[in-house]
Amino acid sequence: MNTEADSIATMVNGQAAGTVPVFDRGLQFGDGVFETIRIHRGKPVWWEQHVERLLYGCRQLCFSRVPNVSLLFREASELTAKVDTGVLKIIITRGNSNSGYAPPQDTRENRILIVSSGQRHAVQADKGIRLGLCEQRISSAPGALSGIKHLNRLDQVLGRLECVNHGWDEGVMLDQEDHPIEGTMSNLFILKENSLLTPSLEKSGIRGICREFILGHAHKSGFDTEECELGVDDLLESDGLFICNSLVGIWPVRYFIDRSYENNERSMQLRRTVEEAMCS
Amino acid sequence: MNTEADSIATMVNGQAAGTVPVFDRGLQFGDGVFETIRIHRGKPVWWEQHVERLLYGCRQLCFSRVPNVSLLFREASELTAKVDTGVLKIIITRGNSNSGYAPPQDTRENRILIVSSGQRHAVQADKGIRLGLCEQRISSAPGALSGIKHLNRLDQVLGRLECVNHGWDEGVMLDQEDHPIEGTMSNLFILKENSLLTPSLEKSGIRGICREFILGHAHKSGFDTEECELGVDDLLESDGLFICNSLVGIWPVRYFIDRSYENNERSMQLRRTVEEAMCS
Repeated sequence: MNTEADSIATMVNGQAAGTVPVFDRGLQFGDGVFETIRIHRGKPVWWEQHVERLLYGCRQLCFSRVPNVSLLFREASELTAKVDTGVLKIIITRGNSNSGYAPPQDTRENRILIVSSGQRHAVQADKGIRLGLCEQRISSAPGALSGIKHLNRLDQVLGRLECVNHGWDEGVMLDQEDHPIEGTMSNLFILKENSLLTPSLEKSGIRGICREFILGHAHKSGFDTEECELGVDDLLESDGLFICNSLVGIWPVRYFIDRSYENNERSMQLRRTVEEAMCS
Repeated sequence: MNTEADSIATMVNGQAAGTVPVFDRGLQFGDGVFETIRIHRGKPVWWEQHVERLLYGCRQLCFSRVPNVSLLFREASELTAKVDTGVLKIIITRGNSNSGYAPPQDTRENRILIVSSGQRHAVQADKGIRLGLCEQRISSAPGALSGIKHLNRLDQVLGRLECVNHGWDEGVMLDQEDHPIEGTMSNLFILKENSLLTPSLEKSGIRGICREFILGHAHKSGFDTEECELGVDDLLESDGLFICNSLVGIWPVRYFIDRSYENNERSMQLRRTVEEAMCS
């Protein structure tokens, strides 16, 4: 895990800077969106997909302007060019105000870029991870907020705290109807014979870039895919489990609650496919 | 409504400052709590109640430390002393990190104080306000997050945007089971004969300081009070409605959807009682 000491560079609205005004609405209300993007050999991986989700989020939040993509790309490239392996975080907030919840009409968004070197989450993917079940639920907010990677992330912070306290590598989070939705920082897949099942994200959860990649490419590895409503029992009774995100790719699960999954070979094959796509 | 130009002073961790690090977890994840406190003749109104809720929120979020209350009071007093009428906003975040969702173990919280002069919400309370019904729902998150005034406030931002777009003074927000929970920036009361009914906040919503005051003191004005599950019809069929918060006190409602409430006298009486308590 990185500490601040690892971070290489920060940029705010195109300038080398490490602070934002206290009036920034990201700070005040979580009024913004973000992406964490893997850097491989100086380049942000799956850039177009991340930016597409970022812009979609800005539109869902009714920002009066969306960020200029080519400007964002120039700024990101400048920061990542000399980084072999790392993480680029982009935060776009609605801008500054001191007016309460009401968004000011003519605000300019704030663009915050943070580049950190090194791998953020180092686990031994080969052995499979330990997955727990969080008590903290995912808040459901069907409508504008569903699926987007906005800055209201207390559910995940509290879920992640449970992982740390229990020594889990990751934790499954349920919605309020007891359906597994995602991990604290990842999406979730179940292997069942030749099918990959992943929770439907109609009502809550984040549409992960790696999840989308897997849904689009798994058939090449011989899998059908389905987005559906799942229960915890579906996870326990599956042939295998893995979690994914665009920083780590795929992590096969070795343990979930009292179940162990002995053979991760098919997840590992998919992991290699994803890694190839990310590092090509 | 204030603009930035009205603001008098900002303080970060005891120093006159107007910025926070981009690593602040309030910005990164909304990982913090806040209070907006009315200033009357140089003093923060209902200080103890606001601080109690602030500390409760920090504990619910499992902060490794809670703010030092006497330090906070000294800082607040320094900023508010020369302000006749205004708003003190206090934001406490978990502190800085660059480690993803997992809270670092030894982080120090960030204390952000913003004092703005003038009244934030100027409406003619005497005439009663126009109340709408927001499409945006309140995310329900029973458990640690329920009732506290945390920084994950996108529901309210989007609800408030509807108010602005429709020209409402305030908007009622429903949970996902169609129960009215609160206004975008206020709590909600129904008058029904000699009873004041207000939505139960077991699953979602913010426990407003003014709401608590009314629940504790309404019997002196001859009212019974009850926290209960309500429907939109209960609002439409009531004898009267008002909203409240600790900045404006009570605002009687004149219009809600297609209903008008002719006689606000009893709400206005309560308003005067609350005003006296706030300005004593």
